[in-house]
Amino acid sequence: MIRKLSAELIGTALLLATVVGSGIMGETLANGNDAIALLGNTIATGAILFVLITIFGALSGAHFNPAVTLVMWLRKDMPLGDSIAYVGVQIIGGLIGVVAAHYMFDMALLQESTKLRTGPNQWFAEGVATFGLLLTIIGTVRARPEAVPMAVGLYITAGYWFTASTSFANPAVTIARSFSDTFAGINPDHVIGFILAQLAGAVIAWLVCGFMFRSD
Amino acid sequence: MIRKLSAELIGTALLLATVVGSGIMGETLANGNDAIALLGNTIATGAILFVLITIFGALSGAHFNPAVTLVMWLRKDMPLGDSIAYVGVQIIGGLIGVVAAHYMFDMALLQESTKLRTGPNQWFAEGVATFGLLLTIIGTVRARPEAVPMAVGLYITAGYWFTASTSFANPAVTIARSFSDTFAGINPDHVIGFILAQLAGAVIAWLVCGFMFRSD
Amino acid sequence: MIRKLSAELIGTALLLATVVGSGIMGETLANGNDAIALLGNTIATGAILFVLITIFGALSGAHFNPAVTLVMWLRKDMPLGDSIAYVGVQIIGGLIGVVAAHYMFDMALLQESTKLRTGPNQWFAEGVATFGLLLTIIGTVRARPEAVPMAVGLYITAGYWFTASTSFANPAVTIARSFSDTFAGINPDHVIGFILAQLAGAVIAWLVCGFMFRSD
Amino acid sequence: MIRKLSAELIGTALLLATVVGSGIMGETLANGNDAIALLGNTIATGAILFVLITIFGALSGAHFNPAVTLVMWLRKDMPLGDSIAYVGVQIIGGLIGVVAAHYMFDMALLQESTKLRTGPNQWFAEGVATFGLLLTIIGTVRARPEAVPMAVGLYITAGYWFTASTSFANPAVTIARSFSDTFAGINPDHVIGFILAQLAGAVIAWLVCGFMFRSD
Repeated sequence: MIRKLSAELIGTALLLATVVGSGIMGETLANGNDAIALLGNTIATGAILFVLITIFGALSGAHFNPAVTLVMWLRKDMPLGDSIAYVGVQIIGGLIGVVAAHYMFDMALLQESTKLRTGPNQWFAEGVATFGLLLTIIGTVRARPEAVPMAVGLYITAGYWFTASTSFANPAVTIARSFSDTFAGINPDHVIGFILAQLAGAVIAWLVCGFMFRSD
Repeated sequence: MIRKLSAELIGTALLLATVVGSGIMGETLANGNDAIALLGNTIATGAILFVLITIFGALSGAHFNPAVTLVMWLRKDMPLGDSIAYVGVQIIGGLIGVVAAHYMFDMALLQESTKLRTGPNQWFAEGVATFGLLLTIIGTVRARPEAVPMAVGLYITAGYWFTASTSFANPAVTIARSFSDTFAGINPDHVIGFILAQLAGAVIAWLVCGFMFRSD
Repeated sequence: MIRKLSAELIGTALLLATVVGSGIMGETLANGNDAIALLGNTIATGAILFVLITIFGALSGAHFNPAVTLVMWLRKDMPLGDSIAYVGVQIIGGLIGVVAAHYMFDMALLQESTKLRTGPNQWFAEGVATFGLLLTIIGTVRARPEAVPMAVGLYITAGYWFTASTSFANPAVTIARSFSDTFAGINPDHVIGFILAQLAGAVIAWLVCGFMFRSD
Repeated sequence: MIRKLSAELIGTALLLATVVGSGIMGETLANGNDAIALLGNTIATGAILFVLITIFGALSGAHFNPAVTLVMWLRKDMPLGDSIAYVGVQIIGGLIGVVAAHYMFDMALLQESTKLRTGPNQWFAEGVATFGLLLTIIGTVRARPEAVPMAVGLYITAGYWFTASTSFANPAVTIARSFSDTFAGINPDHVIGFILAQLAGAVIAWLVCGFMFRSD
């Protein structure tokens, strides 16, 4: 279990370092063209997801995401105690990743984001984003398990562009990003709305997949 | 069959949400540089195609496209009744995807596109685009079935750039995009020309593949 | 043999339609930022190479390139007569692809390129580009044949950026591009220098691979 | 051994030609938008890594990197003498690659970089970058060896964006880049700091992987 938790910790930390760090890099270099910044942010995030899931998939399942852990618990793939430990470690790992990104770019280690991300349209976007993420994971595990790293990486690649909220789709990521007043940030007051929408999307995906992918 | 139709419905909806949503995101952020908007639109669309075909390929065949369903019927891989049901569900799914994208970006749910896409050059482009798509599908199914998600995703990635029409290559997508007055839209009056060109391209691909890939 | 030649014809035509078409699309949309145009050109070309080699690899070997056919003849994998037929068909296919791209974008069907690409630095770049391409093909066929489509697609993706000539690396492509006065063009007077450099690079790769990858 | 060293020499040369050449291409074309230049630099580097590791992995292990060779020696996968020979050849190969890139772009063959890259934040970034690279290699070799080319290519793709130093993560690359006063350069006075940080990151990765991926 300690190795599983280490995998979730290091993986979530590297994920957040990438999400926040590549956002800073993009914003710094793109001369105000946010589409170019988002391209860099997208490519980096999709790429690191392939890597991290490839490395840690067999060890911890490579969740890095409380919404994923929730669904694995709902599917009875994990006991409750382990699930809670996973979520705790994911949140801590996310914060470590944000601090590391800030230090690399010589910024204040913890910041309060001022980026507004709220309202029913954004919540709907997060619900869709997380629904699609869980659909991707459950569907690919079933259809072709070795393609999970590629499928998740490419799903988030698409999600950064097609959802109005840029697909946080992850409560630990959402909490961590509230501590970064940069490209990837989210105002702390808006975190709870995002998380509720994400959990709703995840549960709906679980129900839909239960119907679509049931064994005959 | 209900699960197959669900797969076509959800898949086509997510495909259209991605095509239209990423177009809106690109146009919003790119400061008028349409090449950058098209890059984001391209990457998102190619990525989601990999995901959706991976997930739903074994369940419904992952057509999401009446031109593909037509060719599968011509190849006697599907009965006529199922094919018609597929097409109906694909069109409905596409509309749901467009509405979802508009809602995420807080826009009018159904719009009338004013984007002009017509004339023999555009029709030729759509014919080539759909010819190439069917060639890709039939050829990859024959050569290396597990590569279909990657091949289709990458074919459309190329098609967005090399065809003057940006490769709609899909009647359900064409209909749905006529309801979006955004980057990805098409004037409703120009839908029929695109669809006829697409069906012609698909049938030509079917004939060419029948010759090229016949069993010896 | 007729099916092999058809595969080479259609494949080279689609390759050139993509190279030239995506160049036109990029130049048209990028507001004078040639790096963005080249990004679109790169992504489309790399993507279509994956597709075409996946589809046609088992049928014709998916050369689409006289330099590749030359090396396959040198390696005694193909008789001379077939090789000459391949080269002829590749050149014709390339021209068809250029004409198709021009028609899609409503331009003069055959044009005389005015783009200057000459001098020892450019020739060296083409030699390196073609050396690397053949090294990629021979090395991947030996190490992991099913990865050839991805390796060639990604090699050209890199080549478009790291060689000063943007890696034509293909005599049929070079001839065809001299008929397009667009982003991807090359002045007809400069074709012969490129082709000689390409053939030199290919032969050197054949010699180096003979040493590096010899059976023990 | 001579073939292994040839593989390391040619591989590192092509890697550096790509890193430096695509940086020059990006800077030349991007009209001062460094994010676009970095996108081209990133895509080319990630792509060539996939190719080179696919080709040379079975022959030499495809290190191209003294930090990787160091860890392979620490893991007792290589004797000391061979390791030293590898490092020597990697450094020479890197220099050849830089000279080749400069010649292709018609620039002075060896230059002294004026690009400042120093200070604790940059060193921390290089440590993280190299830690992540070794974690990627060791973890993927263990979990799914055939995915190593893709994992390394995508890890560096992410690293170019998420680390403030753009992930040199390689002492031979660092030395070579100090001879190029272009986009990819590094002031010679700052080389030693980068290399020490890289070696520290590599050793930490070795220790962490020894714990995380130990056999049970």
